[in-house]
Amino acid sequence: MKFLEDRIRRDGQVRPGNILKVDSFLNHQIDVDLLDQIGKAFYNEYKDAGITRILTIEASGIAIGCAAARYFHVPVVFAKKAKSRNIDGDVYTSTVHSFTYGKDYQITLSKKYLGPDDTVLLVDDFLAVGKAMRGLLDVCGQAGAKVAGIGICIEKGFQEGGKILRSEGYKVTSLAIVDHMTDDGQITFREE
Amino acid sequence: MKFLEDRIRRDGQVRPGNILKVDSFLNHQIDVDLLDQIGKAFYNEYKDAGITRILTIEASGIAIGCAAARYFHVPVVFAKKAKSRNIDGDVYTSTVHSFTYGKDYQITLSKKYLGPDDTVLLVDDFLAVGKAMRGLLDVCGQAGAKVAGIGICIEKGFQEGGKILRSEGYKVTSLAIVDHMTDDGQITFREE
Repeated sequence: MKFLEDRIRRDGQVRPGNILKVDSFLNHQIDVDLLDQIGKAFYNEYKDAGITRILTIEASGIAIGCAAARYFHVPVVFAKKAKSRNIDGDVYTSTVHSFTYGKDYQITLSKKYLGPDDTVLLVDDFLAVGKAMRGLLDVCGQAGAKVAGIGICIEKGFQEGGKILRSEGYKVTSLAIVDHMTDDGQITFREE
Repeated sequence: MKFLEDRIRRDGQVRPGNILKVDSFLNHQIDVDLLDQIGKAFYNEYKDAGITRILTIEASGIAIGCAAARYFHVPVVFAKKAKSRNIDGDVYTSTVHSFTYGKDYQITLSKKYLGPDDTVLLVDDFLAVGKAMRGLLDVCGQAGAKVAGIGICIEKGFQEGGKILRSEGYKVTSLAIVDHMTDDGQITFREE
């Protein structure tokens, strides 16, 4: 899984406050060849898991979800962060706290697109404290869907999200785990 | 371009107030095979236009943008709808009115990812009044980027967005143009 580490080393930018900016290739501008590698990496890990749906959350997760779903040949569903006037009333909801935006928000997912017959791979661009992922897991619980695993592009290993999820028995596949960042831009990745 | 009309006829749902729901295959759950056909259709129309970047807007546009960018082998950039704490200050901004949510919002795009050397294909899932597209065009104007065209999945032909854009000289490629919808679910598409 070294390809994403290499790209982060080359094009990622460290900012004070343990912020890692990857917006030149992953979550503002997207390199679609890299995206394809990401989708393939998740497929290689979960191809025998009987995945019926990829589940993610808008906005940055959508690209990752689509890239994975192409390999699995299953639909991708993304949870919405705002309740639109023209979404059905028949939705799962969960409350998520965003540290990036400093507030709580609701996520919603139509009940039509996730149910007890589903085996789900959850994907997202980042895993830090894990609040967004907790919201998606809550939705899977409400749906009665089986969670085969969690595919993350970049895990902030110095925050607790991944550790807690693994301790609860979830399989978490992170393509790059950042263990340490310094304000002068040095990034240390976790060894396999 | 009949494939999208066919899918809308099969799986689209008409709701009172001229709402067309396509969330089973395009903007909540996504059929990635359909998505690939959409990307290919835009590529076929613009492959000789010298496209350097695909530009879209979160959230639903991201999937469309990625699908197109794969064919063009160029990056996709998506304008963000909220100013996050960890985006650079150096951004283009524009104000967009959302009829869906009934309020104005800011879109932002980092100046690093669009400039005067770019030839851009703008894509989105829907074109109705055209406010979101107007915001993206405003951003292209600020960047000095050339707009090769606008690729839309579903245009609401009974609203003025497409007509105005075409009258201004923009090339608008809509894969399906809905001319009329009735409350009992009948959809009339514009003939080529």
